[in-house]
Amino acid sequence: MKLQRTHTCGELRKAQLDQVVTLNGWVGSYRDHGGVTFIDLYDRWGITQIVFDPDHSAEAHKIAHTLRSQYVVAVKGTVRPRPEGMANPNLATGEIDVYVSEFELLNSSKTPPFDVLHAGSVHAETKLKYRYLDMRSPELQQRIIFRSRATNLIRSYFIGKDFVEIETPILGRATPEGARDYLVPSRVNQGKFYALPQSPQLYKQSLMVSGFDRYFQIARCFRDEDLRAERQPEFTQVDLEMSFVSSEDIITILEGLFVGLMKELKGVGITLPMPRISYQEAMLKYGSDAPDLRFGFEITDITDVFSKTSFGVFKTTIEKGGCIRGINLKGRSSELSRKDLDELTPFVKPMRGKGVAWIRMNEDGPQSPIIKFFSEEESAALYARMDAEPGDVLIFVADAEKIVCQCLAAIRGRFARKFGLVRSDDYAFAWVVDFPLFEADEEGNPTPTHHPFTSPKPEDIHLLSGSREELLKIRSDAYDIVLNGSEIGGGSIRIHDHIVQEQIFRILGIEEEEAAEKFGFLLDALQYGAPPHGGLALGLDRIMMILSGTESIRDVIAFPKTQKATCLMTGAPGPVDEAQLDELAIEVFVLDEDEDTDLDD
Amino acid sequence: MKLQRTHTCGELRKAQLDQVVTLNGWVGSYRDHGGVTFIDLYDRWGITQIVFDPDHSAEAHKIAHTLRSQYVVAVKGTVRPRPEGMANPNLATGEIDVYVSEFELLNSSKTPPFDVLHAGSVHAETKLKYRYLDMRSPELQQRIIFRSRATNLIRSYFIGKDFVEIETPILGRATPEGARDYLVPSRVNQGKFYALPQSPQLYKQSLMVSGFDRYFQIARCFRDEDLRAERQPEFTQVDLEMSFVSSEDIITILEGLFVGLMKELKGVGITLPMPRISYQEAMLKYGSDAPDLRFGFEITDITDVFSKTSFGVFKTTIEKGGCIRGINLKGRSSELSRKDLDELTPFVKPMRGKGVAWIRMNEDGPQSPIIKFFSEEESAALYARMDAEPGDVLIFVADAEKIVCQCLAAIRGRFARKFGLVRSDDYAFAWVVDFPLFEADEEGNPTPTHHPFTSPKPEDIHLLSGSREELLKIRSDAYDIVLNGSEIGGGSIRIHDHIVQEQIFRILGIEEEEAAEKFGFLLDALQYGAPPHGGLALGLDRIMMILSGTESIRDVIAFPKTQKATCLMTGAPGPVDEAQLDELAIEVFVLDEDEDTDLDD
Repeated sequence: MKLQRTHTCGELRKAQLDQVVTLNGWVGSYRDHGGVTFIDLYDRWGITQIVFDPDHSAEAHKIAHTLRSQYVVAVKGTVRPRPEGMANPNLATGEIDVYVSEFELLNSSKTPPFDVLHAGSVHAETKLKYRYLDMRSPELQQRIIFRSRATNLIRSYFIGKDFVEIETPILGRATPEGARDYLVPSRVNQGKFYALPQSPQLYKQSLMVSGFDRYFQIARCFRDEDLRAERQPEFTQVDLEMSFVSSEDIITILEGLFVGLMKELKGVGITLPMPRISYQEAMLKYGSDAPDLRFGFEITDITDVFSKTSFGVFKTTIEKGGCIRGINLKGRSSELSRKDLDELTPFVKPMRGKGVAWIRMNEDGPQSPIIKFFSEEESAALYARMDAEPGDVLIFVADAEKIVCQCLAAIRGRFARKFGLVRSDDYAFAWVVDFPLFEADEEGNPTPTHHPFTSPKPEDIHLLSGSREELLKIRSDAYDIVLNGSEIGGGSIRIHDHIVQEQIFRILGIEEEEAAEKFGFLLDALQYGAPPHGGLALGLDRIMMILSGTESIRDVIAFPKTQKATCLMTGAPGPVDEAQLDELAIEVFVLDEDEDTDLDD
Repeated sequence: MKLQRTHTCGELRKAQLDQVVTLNGWVGSYRDHGGVTFIDLYDRWGITQIVFDPDHSAEAHKIAHTLRSQYVVAVKGTVRPRPEGMANPNLATGEIDVYVSEFELLNSSKTPPFDVLHAGSVHAETKLKYRYLDMRSPELQQRIIFRSRATNLIRSYFIGKDFVEIETPILGRATPEGARDYLVPSRVNQGKFYALPQSPQLYKQSLMVSGFDRYFQIARCFRDEDLRAERQPEFTQVDLEMSFVSSEDIITILEGLFVGLMKELKGVGITLPMPRISYQEAMLKYGSDAPDLRFGFEITDITDVFSKTSFGVFKTTIEKGGCIRGINLKGRSSELSRKDLDELTPFVKPMRGKGVAWIRMNEDGPQSPIIKFFSEEESAALYARMDAEPGDVLIFVADAEKIVCQCLAAIRGRFARKFGLVRSDDYAFAWVVDFPLFEADEEGNPTPTHHPFTSPKPEDIHLLSGSREELLKIRSDAYDIVLNGSEIGGGSIRIHDHIVQEQIFRILGIEEEEAAEKFGFLLDALQYGAPPHGGLALGLDRIMMILSGTESIRDVIAFPKTQKATCLMTGAPGPVDEAQLDELAIEVFVLDEDEDTDLDD
């Protein structure tokens, strides 16, 4: 290229008037006006209007007609003011034009499969196939640039706090963390496999044993799960670990990070400390351990109000150990039609909800299909408990606790959206703490709520030798950070005492041999002077998604995969040679030749 | 933990005298002196001597005797000055002691398998198995911290230059770049495989097509090669790409990076521009395309001097198209024994060298087994060409050019080391440019010297339609950066014209169908307005190795693998369940049960 740019397409102002400049960029829109050609030349930094005027350069003007959208060009020309009244206040360069005198075609372009600058309505599959074109759109491009900025702020923050950035292996060993490992057959050690890490958990704990004291990494992690909309086979985690700390220290470090990030990236102030909610309270009040605190509609338990009820549905629920909880849609009666209320029962079906009851508090008394079954005392106690006043609508679900939580959490969100209470530029952070260390699996056996290296709260450690019931009461020294109803990170103080760690493995039914096979080196490491330590991992993709106000995680990843874990641009995964498999000593025994590419949104 | 630190172990000075402080750390050395116990307590930041004095605290003193090396403790105590003459000037905290009044045992430690603070002579295999302990050694720990610092400087530099940091996929598609791909079987798409990237080459070129203009990434890359000492199955690359640039722009950006890095990390000034050597000159003068410029001993071609020789060895060499080249070990005659010279022939055997001739330039005339075969004119021309003077030793190899280069390059290095000219704190950078675009493979067919996306020099493009001989003369617009005789990075201007790209594929014998199958999306992308672009990748591990003055790449990687690609700490790669393989629809057909762990240094 002969004409190398002197300025970017977002740079020229009136200050450069009459200067001779060179720009490189892509041809955007194209207009002819009285024999003069106007082209929007664009690059990553902006758009500059370039003018091919036969009076300025007859030669350049002739070439203008050969240009098409997305051609790559270099132009040399003079910066001139736009005529009176023609300035574009929406464009940083809107007060000037560049009158072209020299021209170089750097590359042509076939007609793109879609309008790259206005690709909103184009089918997602097409855009993923031509991702290199889709990323020319300013929206997507700016999100990727935003992510780079954010990542850099995160790194600078941790470096400033004496954290050491350490790369941990991608070719690791399988760990049984519940979800699935991607496996990599070894050629040098045939019959053996590496696993891609689901997280650097074991490595970072080893680093604490080594004495690095403060570690972080922007770590690529992998999980071979059936993909949901917001999951990708590979994802990025802001991973950190600290020694000689309590959970308070880790929470403080993270709060400092988010105060800085929100200020730098969004110009938003965050009040500290962030609200803290116990797991139990979160489930009770919001039906979720990742509550959206941008709005109210808190849940109230009314099980005790109906402890002696003769109303069949409630009675049976209570007898089965379930509960009855409700939400008061305060003052919203006039905004809710009967249809809005009737739609709730089908709405909760996917959450296994059997039904939703409601009471509309009219000026002339409550209206509801169910109040006729309540005693006067029950009604009175209910209204008092739920602070029911004329204009309110009360919503109830009676079922097993888990189902009640799920249904009411979803109903809370549904009405918040309906009433416009959910704004993407409103940011509600919270910590959820005091998680149970164990959950009961389907057979009632304890499984880790987080992972098996999570420390119990010191005051609950004595319960480790207790009954199954007592085990389920143990609280962990774990903490999740929640933003706008999404868990964006979680962590814990880890077990640094190998005796406690072995005890946990026993409780989880992991035999000594199995533990040694799977986590042997960590159990060893804990016996050689492991310091107290803890840490946290943030889901970078999800945070970027929320902060850039988009609904899909694919919008913040340069080369995302589809829900079937394929890359439509490169065609990964693809077929390989028989010879390659031979070297790895593996063979494929089922060949599913289904070549469908797909994207279910 | 109750006693959380107020200071690190590297922090206390006389300024803190009489303060009550709390330290957390590991027990290093341990001494008893007149009933008083002195312990070196250490952490990542340093060592503080803590004193258990019965006069200060009888209780704490009693505990001191139970402590062992690598126990993790918390102590609270008073900062006191060391007695007159007892200060340790080698220790930042050497002027003070902390007299312990309160004590908390945070964790005990089994006796470590080696002395973690002095593990120099311990077998490498043992250290890798207990990597978490080996990394407690200050040397290794500081190297990992050094790497973190360096990485951060590199990132800040590129961010400051408007580069966007973009994460590209690890689960990619196989690319035929010569070396081997690690494969990942897909569960969702049975029979298909992902490949771990050998470099983000295709992605970064796509990003240029997208218009990101300046991209960088500290990228993990993978190559399933038989491992040499300085290779790891996964390695880290500082990867960058720029649009609308010439090779000069990229070289300038990189020179700026290294000036900053060397200044910040080593306090060393680098003179710009760095020396530039053409590939041809590098091979001629240094026998290598990664010459070590810390010393001279340049190679001189003397083939023409012997064009009419009757000396059989030289004559045959020339007839076969070979060459004769030599090095003048200027003024080193007195430092070289006959044995030193005789050892050269066996030394070059591994490089397929058949022999090494020498001439010792004594005061009383030259001495050599071969000069008797030279004519007077040949001798005179030889001495003139090689600037031979009394006190010099001339060394020759006559063979095929490739072998001559390899032998003389090795001999150059051997004598430079012998004469102490190779200092690890001396840094000689250089650019090697004007590489041939193609090399001839064993059958004489052109293969890419770098990779098939490398652009020819514009002035050589016309040769693309030439004969095989002409093809081999084409120079590429590629550049390697060399430090102290190691290639630390390389890059090129890429082909942005799809017609040239297709022409290159044809020359390489890559059929259209194969090209479409393997690089289809890049060939497509080049047709939709690809800007001129180029880039470079630096080998971060190797750079860290050189800058931290160590000989092994394992010393700058937290969790390295052995030469057999195993991790002795975690046991990766390991066996997996039959059920896991079933899900992936693969089976292992050879089971090599060799369980050897190993490390061949």
